Amino acid sequence: MKKVAVIMGSDSDLPVVEKAINTLKEYEVPFEVHVFSAHRTPAEAKAFSENARKNNFGAIIAAAGMAAHLAGAIAANTTLPVIGIPVASKNLEGMDALLSTVMMPSGIPVATVAINGAANAAILAIQILAVTDDALREKLENARAEGSKKVLAKNASIEEQYNA
Amino acid sequence: MKKVAVIMGSDSDLPVVEKAINTLKEYEVPFEVHVFSAHRTPAEAKAFSENARKNNFGAIIAAAGMAAHLAGAIAANTTLPVIGIPVASKNLEGMDALLSTVMMPSGIPVATVAINGAANAAILAIQILAVTDDALREKLENARAEGSKKVLAKNASIEEQYNA
Amino acid sequence: MKKVAVIMGSDSDLPVVEKAINTLKEYEVPFEVHVFSAHRTPAEAKAFSENARKNNFGAIIAAAGMAAHLAGAIAANTTLPVIGIPVASKNLEGMDALLSTVMMPSGIPVATVAINGAANAAILAIQILAVTDDALREKLENARAEGSKKVLAKNASIEEQYNA
Amino acid sequence: MKKVAVIMGSDSDLPVVEKAINTLKEYEVPFEVHVFSAHRTPAEAKAFSENARKNNFGAIIAAAGMAAHLAGAIAANTTLPVIGIPVASKNLEGMDALLSTVMMPSGIPVATVAINGAANAAILAIQILAVTDDALREKLENARAEGSKKVLAKNASIEEQYNA
Amino acid sequence: MKKVAVIMGSDSDLPVVEKAINTLKEYEVPFEVHVFSAHRTPAEAKAFSENARKNNFGAIIAAAGMAAHLAGAIAANTTLPVIGIPVASKNLEGMDALLSTVMMPSGIPVATVAINGAANAAILAIQILAVTDDALREKLENARAEGSKKVLAKNASIEEQYNA
Amino acid sequence: MKKVAVIMGSDSDLPVVEKAINTLKEYEVPFEVHVFSAHRTPAEAKAFSENARKNNFGAIIAAAGMAAHLAGAIAANTTLPVIGIPVASKNLEGMDALLSTVMMPSGIPVATVAINGAANAAILAIQILAVTDDALREKLENARAEGSKKVLAKNASIEEQYNA
Amino acid sequence: MKKVAVIMGSDSDLPVVEKAINTLKEYEVPFEVHVFSAHRTPAEAKAFSENARKNNFGAIIAAAGMAAHLAGAIAANTTLPVIGIPVASKNLEGMDALLSTVMMPSGIPVATVAINGAANAAILAIQILAVTDDALREKLENARAEGSKKVLAKNASIEEQYNA
Amino acid sequence: MKKVAVIMGSDSDLPVVEKAINTLKEYEVPFEVHVFSAHRTPAEAKAFSENARKNNFGAIIAAAGMAAHLAGAIAANTTLPVIGIPVASKNLEGMDALLSTVMMPSGIPVATVAINGAANAAILAIQILAVTDDALREKLENARAEGSKKVLAKNASIEEQYNA
Repeated sequence: MKKVAVIMGSDSDLPVVEKAINTLKEYEVPFEVHVFSAHRTPAEAKAFSENARKNNFGAIIAAAGMAAHLAGAIAANTTLPVIGIPVASKNLEGMDALLSTVMMPSGIPVATVAINGAANAAILAIQILAVTDDALREKLENARAEGSKKVLAKNASIEEQYNA
Repeated sequence: MKKVAVIMGSDSDLPVVEKAINTLKEYEVPFEVHVFSAHRTPAEAKAFSENARKNNFGAIIAAAGMAAHLAGAIAANTTLPVIGIPVASKNLEGMDALLSTVMMPSGIPVATVAINGAANAAILAIQILAVTDDALREKLENARAEGSKKVLAKNASIEEQYNA
Repeated sequence: MKKVAVIMGSDSDLPVVEKAINTLKEYEVPFEVHVFSAHRTPAEAKAFSENARKNNFGAIIAAAGMAAHLAGAIAANTTLPVIGIPVASKNLEGMDALLSTVMMPSGIPVATVAINGAANAAILAIQILAVTDDALREKLENARAEGSKKVLAKNASIEEQYNA
Repeated sequence: MKKVAVIMGSDSDLPVVEKAINTLKEYEVPFEVHVFSAHRTPAEAKAFSENARKNNFGAIIAAAGMAAHLAGAIAANTTLPVIGIPVASKNLEGMDALLSTVMMPSGIPVATVAINGAANAAILAIQILAVTDDALREKLENARAEGSKKVLAKNASIEEQYNA
Repeated sequence: MKKVAVIMGSDSDLPVVEKAINTLKEYEVPFEVHVFSAHRTPAEAKAFSENARKNNFGAIIAAAGMAAHLAGAIAANTTLPVIGIPVASKNLEGMDALLSTVMMPSGIPVATVAINGAANAAILAIQILAVTDDALREKLENARAEGSKKVLAKNASIEEQYNA
Repeated sequence: MKKVAVIMGSDSDLPVVEKAINTLKEYEVPFEVHVFSAHRTPAEAKAFSENARKNNFGAIIAAAGMAAHLAGAIAANTTLPVIGIPVASKNLEGMDALLSTVMMPSGIPVATVAINGAANAAILAIQILAVTDDALREKLENARAEGSKKVLAKNASIEEQYNA
Repeated sequence: MKKVAVIMGSDSDLPVVEKAINTLKEYEVPFEVHVFSAHRTPAEAKAFSENARKNNFGAIIAAAGMAAHLAGAIAANTTLPVIGIPVASKNLEGMDALLSTVMMPSGIPVATVAINGAANAAILAIQILAVTDDALREKLENARAEGSKKVLAKNASIEEQYNA
Repeated sequence: MKKVAVIMGSDSDLPVVEKAINTLKEYEVPFEVHVFSAHRTPAEAKAFSENARKNNFGAIIAAAGMAAHLAGAIAANTTLPVIGIPVASKNLEGMDALLSTVMMPSGIPVATVAINGAANAAILAIQILAVTDDALREKLENARAEGSKKVLAKNASIEEQYNA
């Protein structure tokens, strides 16, 4: 199976990124985690991106805050789908990272998820792999069904509490 | 080859969406175009989404403006990757559509591109199909190389004009 | 008397939504509370909305955060008045939910109240029922008079403290 | 049948407000149009609001731009449902009017629709009257069905154009 | 000497407003404090405003949060200078109150100060009275000189600490 | 009678500022107009401000766009009331000028009016002079009454058109 | 004398960037103009940046719109001062480019000027060179004096027109 | 060697500014720290700025919050490069200070860094001095290499933890 790369721009992004890692584990999708900075280790980010496809990656998740260039810098060096997680920083609540991640110029898309939306970044990566992987598709559908059941259970509990 | 669906919430979105259609044509990726409204024809949007995978779609692009619920409504009914194009309306410059598209809750991601970023939506869809399609990957790499050449040519022309 | 439905997109919205529930209780307006997710249990949300009028509901309150599609998804399936409460999430302070709730396309309005404005959502629902219900109108007028008295009392207390 | 009031803060709001008037005409709902300014003719705004219920109004639509106080000023003087249309001005694209209209304090709700969303304001008013008026409900349902048909027709036309 | 009125829309604004009250005390300017709500006690707000000039007020300070209509509602009923303090609420950081206070329509100005800028509201009121009051002008100039001295002292202390 | 100063940061602000000038003319309030730049002619801005009171000014209006420092720079050099007009520039719609003008630190208030709100700046200046000038107060009250009449006339015309 | 590099991310930025070029010409500062895209020709951008200092550049100006990564990408590959011009695009008025340019992480600053502020970018570059270049400093001071004279002349003309 | 000035508008900015001071110490660049307020001690700010070049300063860092005029006020009185640090205040998260600092008019640039980006302000000042100072350039390059090493080390540690 193809792997998913989880790249963060700084290890301070780990608390956000961990939700992506945990989701990939739950789905038993092989993955690698790296810290590459678009600005401090651009060569490593570039080298990884250029070789990602031949190293058997199927999607790359990139998380960064503030002037979040990481996802775009990776996307510039691969034609694999790149998923961007805008990370909220102390000021501006992630609006800076959201605009820096999503407003990419024509030709180099970044598939952007919600501010701090790391779980969804992983699910999106899995959805991409599942386009041609029926086992993975089934896991996604099961998880979706589980998610619905959880909401239904909460609904039942709230209905019992309030609508008696 | 898997198809790409291009859904718009209103036919007034067509001028934006056409860039996606043209890009898919350039890459010779099979596609379908539909107008489904999350609010006016929700049943059609749901039916299409539920059947998209078995109808051989590999990715769905959804474009909508204002309280842009379309991409999310589609994503709720499929585990295929859904790509959202926030369309700029007369007021708020697309900020409303961007936030309505990208800030999805955990479990149901929408791969969001830039405001009015229809060409990138198509490229992202093609990147997703190209994960397991070498011919498509090659086209992407060629287009990337072409894109670089165009910038280099513009650079050469500007250098000639200013740096003589 | 017609009932008011109070729908939340996630049980994590309950602390906000409780103010709506408590207000409805104060006014002795019959109500039901449900957890329906526009994205995780769309079928339940749809079924409820389609049947709400014949199930004797007069207004539906829907609370959701982030890309808050719930109120719009409900409004798409009923012609009852739908009242949207944009719920503030950890980032963006509810601006995302506000725009996702209020910027609805022509034909499908959502009556939007303030961010986290659950008490007002209930009062608005009661005002809607009171258009043809004199007993309810009287309660609203009494509450309004009570509200004025409270401000007058606070004014008196502050005047005494500062203007002696 | 109860009437709907359409109040604008300035006659410069008429181009926006006309969509509300036309919608009310289409539904054959009796209405009155007035220009009352929260700041320049507050007495008239107050007098109208205080007497609106006994003058057989069932809902009041108020449109205003900039520091849009009109809807709130009316809501302060009636317990009828008040629907606010934030009108976009030359600067700030209606964000000022949106926040001034929707962020009402507890006790005095304003049912806010989209920036310049006058048609939806009228539909919301009609939905409110239709809670207890079956003929009106039927018209709403017919219009909803018509709206769906229009989208379906546009879909058919676009499908024909692109999916041949 | 003319008096300054300090009006707040809710007694929850008192912690912000107290800085205005304390400043007026420091300058020994006579003042009155009131709680008038634009929406809950509009009649009192109106009565106070209409009579403010003949009751010997020279300026009115109005503090309110969210859809902050208070200053405008007061300004609509007097030609005295009205000073608006936008009060920050739990969400939106006072941006809602700022726009609701400052974006007044032509003819009815509100002299707006910074979000939560109660001390400056009082100083502005004093500056207005001081236009024709030399004793007050002198106090303002002394306070300004004191303010400068404090900054100079802090500068001296920081210079000593860092520039030794 | 005291004079009003109208300062603009650049002669490109004149189209906005002219509404202030015309309003002062209508009220027959003596005024002076100057172009002083906080950044290009700071010495002139300072000299004018320091001497404004003794040169018989009662209020200073300052209009500037972008990083609009002019009103604050003037306020730093006088204890006269300073009224700031945030001027909208090509980008950001005046939000930059609004925040640069209104968010003044404690001790140095700027009485800020709406973006491009030049007429209101003049009226506010006149209101300040009218605190102790009965003839001016009367003019303000007459203008207010005229303003109300105009709205009433527009109301009558619209009522005739729509409510026949 | 050291040279100034003027880099733009796309030749569509030229109308904005030309003001920088013209300013450098006026000051007779040697310069080079290039089109390098952070995403389409990252190798060229990197190569240029890495060699800029040894190629006798003293400052680099980088202009880009939307998710404006160019200035940061250049700054990541040189320790020369890098000046960023956020370019306004069709939507969001340059706010996206501003945040993407200015919110750089610790260690890699970008000296950001106003949205579309190309002339100031050039002046800042010249100021940097002038730190150790007296002839250039003199030109800056002369230009500053000229700028003041122009404002004084406009002031004189406006004073004559209005204060006669 | 030329000195760097670190100016703050209020000693409450010291916790932010200390990162600039510490960075300058690390690089052994001579510096001075001052508290000058654009509004409370404008004369001192002006005197310092006018004499900064002849007092052997090569760059001036200015930190201020809210309507942050300090950097602009300094830039108006010197042709040295002025670096602005927008300081986040309690409300608006520094967006007010960012716009007040960066949106300078043509002719008077302020080199703006990120909100609270004091370390980067110091590095930018050092980069400016290093244009003609090889020892300083070497220190910058070493620090850059150190920064890369730290990211590489973190990457190694995270890789070990997750990619075993």
